[in-house]
Amino acid sequence: MENKVIKAGMLGLGTVGTGVYKVLKSQEPEMEAKLGAKVELKKILVRNLEKAAGKVDDPSVLTNDPKEILEDPEIEIVIEVMGGMQPAFSYMLAALNAGKSVVTANKDVVASEGKKLLEAARASGRDFLYEASVAGGIPILRPLKQCLAGNHISEVIGIFNGTTNFILTKMTKEGMEFEEALQLAQDLGYAEADPTADIEGLDAGRKVAILASAAFNSRVVFENVYTEGIARITAKDIQYAREMGCEIKLLGVARLTEEGIEARVHPMLIDSDHPLASVQDSYNAVQDAMFYGRGAGELPTASAVVGDVFDCVRNILAGCCGRIGCTCYKDLPVRKISDIRSKYFVRMEVEDRSGVLASVAAVFGNNDVSISQVVQKRKKSELAEIVVITEKVQERHFMDAIRILEGMSLIRNISSLIRVYG
Amino acid sequence: MENKVIKAGMLGLGTVGTGVYKVLKSQEPEMEAKLGAKVELKKILVRNLEKAAGKVDDPSVLTNDPKEILEDPEIEIVIEVMGGMQPAFSYMLAALNAGKSVVTANKDVVASEGKKLLEAARASGRDFLYEASVAGGIPILRPLKQCLAGNHISEVIGIFNGTTNFILTKMTKEGMEFEEALQLAQDLGYAEADPTADIEGLDAGRKVAILASAAFNSRVVFENVYTEGIARITAKDIQYAREMGCEIKLLGVARLTEEGIEARVHPMLIDSDHPLASVQDSYNAVQDAMFYGRGAGELPTASAVVGDVFDCVRNILAGCCGRIGCTCYKDLPVRKISDIRSKYFVRMEVEDRSGVLASVAAVFGNNDVSISQVVQKRKKSELAEIVVITEKVQERHFMDAIRILEGMSLIRNISSLIRVYG
Repeated sequence: MENKVIKAGMLGLGTVGTGVYKVLKSQEPEMEAKLGAKVELKKILVRNLEKAAGKVDDPSVLTNDPKEILEDPEIEIVIEVMGGMQPAFSYMLAALNAGKSVVTANKDVVASEGKKLLEAARASGRDFLYEASVAGGIPILRPLKQCLAGNHISEVIGIFNGTTNFILTKMTKEGMEFEEALQLAQDLGYAEADPTADIEGLDAGRKVAILASAAFNSRVVFENVYTEGIARITAKDIQYAREMGCEIKLLGVARLTEEGIEARVHPMLIDSDHPLASVQDSYNAVQDAMFYGRGAGELPTASAVVGDVFDCVRNILAGCCGRIGCTCYKDLPVRKISDIRSKYFVRMEVEDRSGVLASVAAVFGNNDVSISQVVQKRKKSELAEIVVITEKVQERHFMDAIRILEGMSLIRNISSLIRVYG
Repeated sequence: MENKVIKAGMLGLGTVGTGVYKVLKSQEPEMEAKLGAKVELKKILVRNLEKAAGKVDDPSVLTNDPKEILEDPEIEIVIEVMGGMQPAFSYMLAALNAGKSVVTANKDVVASEGKKLLEAARASGRDFLYEASVAGGIPILRPLKQCLAGNHISEVIGIFNGTTNFILTKMTKEGMEFEEALQLAQDLGYAEADPTADIEGLDAGRKVAILASAAFNSRVVFENVYTEGIARITAKDIQYAREMGCEIKLLGVARLTEEGIEARVHPMLIDSDHPLASVQDSYNAVQDAMFYGRGAGELPTASAVVGDVFDCVRNILAGCCGRIGCTCYKDLPVRKISDIRSKYFVRMEVEDRSGVLASVAAVFGNNDVSISQVVQKRKKSELAEIVVITEKVQERHFMDAIRILEGMSLIRNISSLIRVYG
């Protein structure tokens, strides 16, 4: 396995393609340890050789002839990041038929023609992988297809489009109307000049089609998905929804019922206590509900065991056990708790006389502990209560300050010390 | 591949073991289509043959001799669900050395001795899989080891223990003190008679050790993890935290810094707007922050592409491309939107005179649409505004009602129709 190199070709060098190029570069030092091989981008298909030359270290990898990738027997993996239905679909089909593995980020093609590509991959015994077609930073497709094989999944819901979630967040938090929030999203580069695919829910609808197929083991294409956008939501709707304890989100829902599969994208009121209600700005989030959903109890653990058993079976059948073994190829130090930096919440009972707060503040200050928030409350008798939240400081310094406070007669009791996240 | 059977042995038939037995039974009809093989539980190791007999269909699978599993050459997969350090650790090591793949739910062993077991697996070219050791229904370990291989992960934080999250939820929502909430958790079966491992953060600490190792490619053992429990948190702390816009959660944090790895479990204040703040009752939740974290933009998508490229490379190296292909082996119907059932939020402008609300209610009632909440507000001039949330009804019936309302002269305008999740 020494210096093994796997050659790949990439179709497209737009936003995503440039990102792939950068991520592969940044991974180069670790790739051999992670994978046992290096990935070399041998050729990249671009439209305009001159314009693309500035995006790569060595412009000789660029080509404008797809045959240099699709017909090169050295290239084992084709990465499709050009987008759109054609010619992307034909190129991928040709690559699979030529015995290459294909990776794509193209939700348009996968949501409508995924079946044909998966069949071509099966026929030539290659991989066709498309996690990026639903990606929001969180892998969900592979867990659905592989890790959760031991589960029955009843529902997948999520916020699948960052642009619309950004717009709804602005409408909620700042009372903007839709048009104003859309304009802001465009100004910030979150929304495209033609925002239709985002705001009409088409982008999210394609992701729901792809996810529903993986979750329920039955093909759902984009044309099966009901989509409705957010253009008609008003700031007033959001305000009423909040009065009723809800937020408005553009949700994608894939649900398995007795009568069949539901696959849809539309605005929804969701209880403000629901974790998806607090997903803000351009973040995406996915939640899957299983028939066995809870953290405590026997079935989630049992399902995870069975998922692993299934993976062992797949490896035994494919003759590739031990495909992923120990991944700890580094040897990093683990820090002591006294070395970490954190904010702290401290609650203490103090004598209720003038100067106490100043004394407390002085102890913190002398130990390099800055204070962010203070609340002082009078209790019954001669005691007052002081609650302090510090800035981010080193635990060691904070604990030094606490030890001094504990020795002071005007501090009766330090009731609580709790770290603060963030 | 017709009627291929892979034989497995299971060590233990307690809560998790019984769950595994049930899940495997429930998966039997689909297993061949999902996997291309059936998994047969050939032998199950139990302590008391008589007591265990009632838990299985055929008591002849039970044994109290571990050799019947560890030394049976027909058994290719050993499932360890007995728990505790010994003899579980020795049994797993023996199984791996005998060339069997091993699946375990045992966080005690994995968090302390995982390295030895992974090395034994590598030496004999078998799988050692332990997703269940951190399971809360959501697979996280495999995505970290495999799907995210193209990412640099900077932090994994989460709520890793359902029992303590249940206790903190009761303290928050109902103002209970710790002892009372613990008692309730015990009465409901969420907490064990000896709750130490849960409430002192030891259970969560083991999970953090396992996850940190997978996330940062460097071994972290349980003994490296700082743990602090929730026994000293008071209802008053929670109340002050809320006044400052925070919730208190028992969080596990694994973080990669310039100076090394931080791995710790302790109570933390977390901003009420953070998604983890709204995880309630006995639910677990995990969040991973990557250097590329956002849903919009180039790098999350590019990272997903690279993750898939890495998977292709692994399959090429292991000679098992096409290991997971199309998983759509069913052909389920997709439901029309008019057939689904949902709650609806309707906002309409109506003439401000007596009897309007009664008329609206009558139209809904005549079309089998029950009303859950109504708000009526007076606007300027002679218009009032009515906001209705319905009960769960069929979309077809609801739309019939809306069409009738649209035709009524006293309804000036139906401003919004939005579905409600849940």
